[in-house]
Amino acid sequence: MRKILIIGAGRSTSSLVQYLLFNAENENWFVTIADQSKELAVKSSNNHDKAKAVAFDVNNEEERNRLIDENDIIISMLPAHMHISVAKDCIRLKKHMVTASYVSKEMKALKQEAIDAGVVIMNEIGVDPGIDHLSAMRLINEIRENGGELEAFETFTGGLIAPESDNNPWNYKFTWNPRNVVLAGQGTVKFIQNHKYKYIPYHKLFRRTEIIDIDGHGKFEGYANRDSLQYRGIYGLEDIPTMYRGTLRKPGFCRAWDVFVQLGATDDSYIMEGSENMTNREFINSFLAYNETDSVELKFKHYLNIRQDDVDLFDKFVWLGIFEDTKIGMKDATPAQILQHILEQKLSLSPNDKDMIVMWHRFLFKQDGKFKEIHSSMVVKGDDQTYTAMAKTVGLPVAIATKMILNKVITTPGVHVPILKEIYEPILNELENYGIHFQEKEVNPRFY
Amino acid sequence: MRKILIIGAGRSTSSLVQYLLFNAENENWFVTIADQSKELAVKSSNNHDKAKAVAFDVNNEEERNRLIDENDIIISMLPAHMHISVAKDCIRLKKHMVTASYVSKEMKALKQEAIDAGVVIMNEIGVDPGIDHLSAMRLINEIRENGGELEAFETFTGGLIAPESDNNPWNYKFTWNPRNVVLAGQGTVKFIQNHKYKYIPYHKLFRRTEIIDIDGHGKFEGYANRDSLQYRGIYGLEDIPTMYRGTLRKPGFCRAWDVFVQLGATDDSYIMEGSENMTNREFINSFLAYNETDSVELKFKHYLNIRQDDVDLFDKFVWLGIFEDTKIGMKDATPAQILQHILEQKLSLSPNDKDMIVMWHRFLFKQDGKFKEIHSSMVVKGDDQTYTAMAKTVGLPVAIATKMILNKVITTPGVHVPILKEIYEPILNELENYGIHFQEKEVNPRFY
Repeated sequence: MRKILIIGAGRSTSSLVQYLLFNAENENWFVTIADQSKELAVKSSNNHDKAKAVAFDVNNEEERNRLIDENDIIISMLPAHMHISVAKDCIRLKKHMVTASYVSKEMKALKQEAIDAGVVIMNEIGVDPGIDHLSAMRLINEIRENGGELEAFETFTGGLIAPESDNNPWNYKFTWNPRNVVLAGQGTVKFIQNHKYKYIPYHKLFRRTEIIDIDGHGKFEGYANRDSLQYRGIYGLEDIPTMYRGTLRKPGFCRAWDVFVQLGATDDSYIMEGSENMTNREFINSFLAYNETDSVELKFKHYLNIRQDDVDLFDKFVWLGIFEDTKIGMKDATPAQILQHILEQKLSLSPNDKDMIVMWHRFLFKQDGKFKEIHSSMVVKGDDQTYTAMAKTVGLPVAIATKMILNKVITTPGVHVPILKEIYEPILNELENYGIHFQEKEVNPRFY
Repeated sequence: MRKILIIGAGRSTSSLVQYLLFNAENENWFVTIADQSKELAVKSSNNHDKAKAVAFDVNNEEERNRLIDENDIIISMLPAHMHISVAKDCIRLKKHMVTASYVSKEMKALKQEAIDAGVVIMNEIGVDPGIDHLSAMRLINEIRENGGELEAFETFTGGLIAPESDNNPWNYKFTWNPRNVVLAGQGTVKFIQNHKYKYIPYHKLFRRTEIIDIDGHGKFEGYANRDSLQYRGIYGLEDIPTMYRGTLRKPGFCRAWDVFVQLGATDDSYIMEGSENMTNREFINSFLAYNETDSVELKFKHYLNIRQDDVDLFDKFVWLGIFEDTKIGMKDATPAQILQHILEQKLSLSPNDKDMIVMWHRFLFKQDGKFKEIHSSMVVKGDDQTYTAMAKTVGLPVAIATKMILNKVITTPGVHVPILKEIYEPILNELENYGIHFQEKEVNPRFY
């Protein structure tokens, strides 16, 4: 009997648990699901005879140690900043660990300790990061094996609403943590294009977008993610002239979102005086210059260069209700918290909504003296609000990696991200059984 | 014999030292000038028989304690964040203290300890903060005494170049710490206008300016300072409908400076890769989108909405040399550090340049059922590069406050800012002897 511990039973664990329990009999697994909320853990374990649910406080060191010690491998589905104490326990107790999160500085620093303890800590094995690494590395290595030399690699991922559930003027709903959506892009974007380092400040980010067309799925727009430069080293592309990672939205979203950025409404650094008694309209007005006679709507249009005939754009804001005299009712809130509150009332999922994950890679390379370009794309839709596209694309790679570690296919100890052929090949192959696959096509090479 | 210790002999201490030594005989003072650089301290003391110079390391606790203990009052002209250890020593050793800096949270927290020790710690008694408090409080109290009720208080100060030394297209030179100028305005601006809270994010700050006309000195433009709201409490104007504090520049500066803000060139939060070998032109290009055929100048104009006939604006940048292939030669530098380096080569003072401090207050109030408006302005020019306007307006109020504490005119212990009549009245009166005075005029009331 191999014992698996999942810490955190949130929305993105459904497909992970389903995979593990479906294979528990064959693989001789027993799965313990631990969550702050016993109820959530119980619901997640679904009374399966190979599973048990426990209430669990990650900050209770003794409890954490005991639970980790009882298992062979630990899957941490906690928020990213909470992995580190679990990782330290895993190293001390010599247990393997899997997360879907970015490797933090603190996690990276555990490398030698993990090696010394003979422990595998696999990270970034969800969707983004995760499937993007797996699928990109497969094509990068194929291109290299065929004697190609990479000139440009661009990759975009978006967590979106499926077309059949897309019924609002933003063509967007919160399929993931709304707070992260509101704060997305803050800081400075760094990438490299034709050997030139490029930097985009937050207040320009949503106006420096790219349009991407995916066969059968239409147009999307992409904006750049924070730091694309570090991936040169990780992917073994130290000298690549162009490297760009980004996020996908439906066209029109970024121009409208930029309005909130320009206003300062996504600022999370200060508390607004009197937020408790503020209305939506007063919230917006606080970012506009005082004027005795002009309406909030007029000042808004003027300040943000929204022309009278930019009807589609302006209607997005009217639809959100930002000009209404609705009381916000949040005490000591930041602008970002208030904006999130307003958006959640309109952009949250309805019970039958389905989400969709879209990923797109572009590879430009030179082969036999000629330029070639390949596009590779993945579109995954959720089945319902339990087995969402997000839950599938995050949970299944985590589950498969867990199996590979338990079955000693992955054995090299250390702090890893999944970039080796021995890892990406079997995971990508197995993901195809679940409808997670990439479509590739060669196109005429395009330069900038 | 009363003993005065000045810690820090930088540029802004010349007039302070001059005042203290001029009055040393009459007042029976002895002045010790302590600086990290013995040379600077010696130069500052000018071989005066009532002065001595000492080399001094503020981080050497023993030395600091000994030196403070030997004196009756301590004037700290150190950078703002270094006052706090001096203040703690002063309280323990029961010595009074004077600074020209904003009261930090840490300084404020010493209030009760200062009271218990019977020590006066007078802060914000330079120019801005300092003379602005003194002159504003005088008028605010006059208006109140005459039965007026304040509707709006706006105040602006600028450290500028005197017109006779103004010979560049920016109408600006660094008369003060260039780093502070480059980083000015970062964060969120907060103020209140007609009872409405208003917030301006940094990327909009330099486009939300106000034009101010001062008789005999022409037009200036003002942008808002960080937090105007806290001054309602300090000035006893808790319910004032409009409160706005700002910084003055010559017209045209803000529109041009905003270009650097929009580019992201004032960002101090990350290091630019390869900054050592970067040229001015490459620095600017790193903020512009890649384009195979367009020049950096063309992309710059296009991105920043600089029209072909905005010649005055564009020439400001050409004049700075930002499009030149000059090597920057700074290793591991942030954008803000590189920008400062480029600007210092063009905007630094020449040997015979004179600086100028401009201050302007606007008071709108209701008296006997009628609205009235008073403008009050101060313009001070430097004599030369030693007795600058900055040195005079910072140093003289500090010196006079020091005298008042030593002569027991100011006796109430605690952590103070100069808002009481007993303090502002004599200081403002004495400053007039040094050409530092305000001109008041009543104008037709103006509303927004």
